[in-house]
Parts: sequence; structure tokens; C-alpha cells
Amino acid sequence: MIRTLSSQKVYSGDDISVKLDKFKLNSKLIIKEIVEHSPSVGIIPIIDNTHTLFVTQYRHAARKLMLEIPAGKIEGKETPVQAALREMHEEIGYTGKLTPLLQWYLAPGYDTELMYVFVATHLKKINKNGNLDNDENIRVRRMTLTSAINKCINGEIQDCKTIAAVLAYSNTKL
Amino acid sequence: MIRTLSSQKVYSGDDISVKLDKFKLNSKLIIKEIVEHSPSVGIIPIIDNTHTLFVTQYRHAARKLMLEIPAGKIEGKETPVQAALREMHEEIGYTGKLTPLLQWYLAPGYDTELMYVFVATHLKKINKNGNLDNDENIRVRRMTLTSAINKCINGEIQDCKTIAAVLAYSNTKL
Repeated sequence: MIRTLSSQKVYSGDDISVKLDKFKLNSKLIIKEIVEHSPSVGIIPIIDNTHTLFVTQYRHAARKLMLEIPAGKIEGKETPVQAALREMHEEIGYTGKLTPLLQWYLAPGYDTELMYVFVATHLKKINKNGNLDNDENIRVRRMTLTSAINKCINGEIQDCKTIAAVLAYSNTKL
Repeated sequence: MIRTLSSQKVYSGDDISVKLDKFKLNSKLIIKEIVEHSPSVGIIPIIDNTHTLFVTQYRHAARKLMLEIPAGKIEGKETPVQAALREMHEEIGYTGKLTPLLQWYLAPGYDTELMYVFVATHLKKINKNGNLDNDENIRVRRMTLTSAINKCINGEIQDCKTIAAVLAYSNTKL
């Protein structure tokens, strides 16, 4: 396997840090810039087997409002399930039964973020919007699964994880 | 819309930079850490309407070999189509006819990278591996589309863009 020869932290911030790793790959010396980000969770909430809940929020990196599945990073010592329940509470005001669907890297070329994706069923309303993160400005949108799938393939949804999650769910028999 | 009050570059590297943007959202002052990364392309190469070509490479951010669609960032003044043709040449040794499929953000919560996704058909072999990036160590894998779809939903593929691309393609009639 790969042995890291050196690792130099070049930026350290609130949500991300950046390091320069030096390692050998097939006897070739490589220096690689890596963004370090906590692992995260994404949730596909399913209501009555026919509907789902998405959220709309302003995304400053894209400079637009985006329609996405509920998601967020794993905080402190949370397990992925605990983080998913917290995000559901905060973003859509529901709790439910979580079933793991998949896990994936969002940008494995340079970013460590690994996302655990769950399907949430048996949804129960608890309250709307608990402790939202500082920059979250979230509106919940309910729609049919058919409509959600259409939005993934017609270009209306421009968030990669949402497209992967909805289409993987619709191709999987849970 | 959102007016950025200030923007401070806090890290500037070869492939990414990081800035701290200050802006007002609903009269709330927000400071947001943003990773700036070039836009990029991803390609789903289709052979005989039944097969596709993936690449396997070591991804240091994930510390493992990963199976992905051919992809890479847009360089200099390239158009997305030019970048996609170059990446196909470099990574799989083919040229072909490109049809836009979708475009999406990989991690819109904090990263500017926008990926243009194409389907490549009428493939013609040109040569294997042109000028690979420094850290690319790529092996081409040919498989049936059915097998590719299965790998996306059974967990074998852990790359979000690959799952989104393959499943969006299989749900779309081009």
C-alpha cells in the first residue's frame, strides 16, 4: 500500500483544513493537496412509499438556491445514525426508521468527505427546524418520488448527492 | 440576491484555494469557508450501446483504489467539450461523440466545483494514456452497462459522481 512520507497542514479552518501529503506511488514521488472534511450523512425521507421531502437552501459556493436531500456533517462523537436523526430533526422536523443505503465520497480526487446515505421510513413529525447551522436557511419541499426522479434527470436538481441518492433508491428494493 | 460584503483568500494552492466570504442572508451576517476548485467534466463512454469504460485509480483522499467514470478538471481556457475529449484521450485512449447529460455541484455546501457530465458514443480508439496528471495511475476497465449499474447500487462503487452519472444515464433516453 501507499506510505505517506510527509504531511503538512497548510490551512486549518472551522469546517475544513488543507494538507499537502507527500507519498510514493509506483516509485513516483507525488505531492497531493487534500481537503479534510468531516464525514457526513444524507437522508432520503420516504412518506407513504410515494413521497419524499427535499430541502431548498441558499448555497453560497454555487451562488444559488438549491434543491437537495436533507444532509449534513457528522458532529463530534456522533455515529452516522445519530447524525442523520439530528439532521432530520433540524432540517425537516421528522424522526423515523433509518436503513443504510450506500456510502460514497463526494470528490475523492482531493476531498476526504465520506457520506453515509440512509433511507428514512415510518416518519413521525416532531417539530420544524431545531438548531439550524449558522448559514442554513431551509425550506422543506414535499413531492412525489416520481417527481423527485424526474427532477434528477431533467436537470432541475444540480446536486450530485441528491441525484445519486434518489436514483440509487429508486433502483434498489429495500 | 446575496451581496458579498468581503472575501478573504486564506489559502492558495495548485488545485484549490480557500476563501472566507462574508455576506448577509435574511439580514443575518454569515461568514462562510469556501473551497474554490475549477469546474470539471465527467464522461460516460458507451460502446455498442451495451458496454462502458471505467477507470481504477488510487485516490489518496480516500486512501484506496476507486472505480470511477473518466473525469477531470477543465484546464485553462478549455470548453467543457474540449476538456472531456482530452480526458477521454488521456484516461481511456478514445475519442467520440459527446452529448451533454447533466451538470451538478459535487459538494455545494462548501465547494465551487461544477461538473459537466457527457455521454460519449461512436467511440474510436486513438491511443492509450496520453499525458496523465502527475498523480494519475489509471487502469481502464470495460464492463457491461448492467454490471456498471449493479456496482452502483450494491456498494462496490463508492464515488458519488459515478453513481449519479450511470444511474441518470440509465434513466434517460438519449
